[in-house]
Amino acid sequence: MQDVKILEVRQSVFADNNADADRLREQLKREKTFLLNLMSSPGAGKTSTLLALADRLSAKLRMAVMEADIDSAVDAEAMLAHGVDSIQIHTGGMCHLDADMTRQGLNSLGSADYDLVILENVGNLVCPAEFDTGACKNMTILSVPEGHDKPLKYPLMYRTCHLLVINKIDVLPYFDFDVDKVVEYAKMRNPDIDILFISAKTGEGIDALADWILESVAQWNA
Amino acid sequence: MQDVKILEVRQSVFADNNADADRLREQLKREKTFLLNLMSSPGAGKTSTLLALADRLSAKLRMAVMEADIDSAVDAEAMLAHGVDSIQIHTGGMCHLDADMTRQGLNSLGSADYDLVILENVGNLVCPAEFDTGACKNMTILSVPEGHDKPLKYPLMYRTCHLLVINKIDVLPYFDFDVDKVVEYAKMRNPDIDILFISAKTGEGIDALADWILESVAQWNA
Repeated sequence: MQDVKILEVRQSVFADNNADADRLREQLKREKTFLLNLMSSPGAGKTSTLLALADRLSAKLRMAVMEADIDSAVDAEAMLAHGVDSIQIHTGGMCHLDADMTRQGLNSLGSADYDLVILENVGNLVCPAEFDTGACKNMTILSVPEGHDKPLKYPLMYRTCHLLVINKIDVLPYFDFDVDKVVEYAKMRNPDIDILFISAKTGEGIDALADWILESVAQWNA
Repeated sequence: MQDVKILEVRQSVFADNNADADRLREQLKREKTFLLNLMSSPGAGKTSTLLALADRLSAKLRMAVMEADIDSAVDAEAMLAHGVDSIQIHTGGMCHLDADMTRQGLNSLGSADYDLVILENVGNLVCPAEFDTGACKNMTILSVPEGHDKPLKYPLMYRTCHLLVINKIDVLPYFDFDVDKVVEYAKMRNPDIDILFISAKTGEGIDALADWILESVAQWNA
């Protein structure tokens, strides 16, 4: 087979968002609020996973969700209809949230009133991974139909996340998705990443995911 | 139901890429090369659709593929293994290609030697839609597992595309995907958008998609 010709094209970027994100984390520490940043491709199941989690988590702590989107409010509407405190953040076309945008959301929400705030970031595997939102932990969802090669193509997403959740395992029989390979590729990007398998649709694995989040909240306040 | 609280957070952006994209299109017109910009979420099936199309298109014209990715060369490798001229463009972390990055790819490829060049853009529904690559037409793939609400959430992608291809229709029975709704939402964003239904896996609808592309190439050179 012929060698692939690789052309590197580059463009420089941004400044001191990292320091701002650290300041936001200090504020969250003082407030005893745990902020979880949830990222994924469009349609991987961020909102349906949060809906599946909501009852289990709400029984144990005070939680709220910040839904970030380019347009529409369908996700925040879904959370509110399910009884979860939620606000919709419109990014004005922006493909990600940085720490200051996240802070605006937290202030608007009144984050000190909550033990857990989950930020549902814009559906995008590239840009959200580049900007520290100030979250205490990062989590990404990869759904079975997307394929097991995603950690090869979007390395930074997997490097920056503490937890990888593989969603839609109920449709594994209908897709060429290699479970061993996705674990191998994800660990190649980040040996410390935790990996859980769920179906937000059937509820499989949701208890374990709720436990992971509750334990993370406990560690934050320890 | 409680009204959703909407918080607008914004940040300004870029400059004169549009003029540069027009210059690139003039060059392509002179070269009699048709450039198709293919966009989608990660894992919607861009590469597998191109592989399914390759034999039908290669029989009719000289074609090449430019694969853009953050990292890895798996897509260009797949195209080359299938006998399609292809280069891999690494964006150095960038979430999209602009006209000048596209031009670098075309120059490296030698675009004047081809009737059709397909640019497989970075898997991302947000940023690629914001930057005119200089392509003659834009096409987006939405796969059934992503859900029918995507045109509500990513309006610009649907506004900038001439063709929407719904992929993975072979798994329609296993997902809550409303075909009528996706057509309604896409037409709401862009009344002129063409819509085709395919399965890159089974080959269903690929002939119609090949015809759409061949007709677009013919119009470009008319």
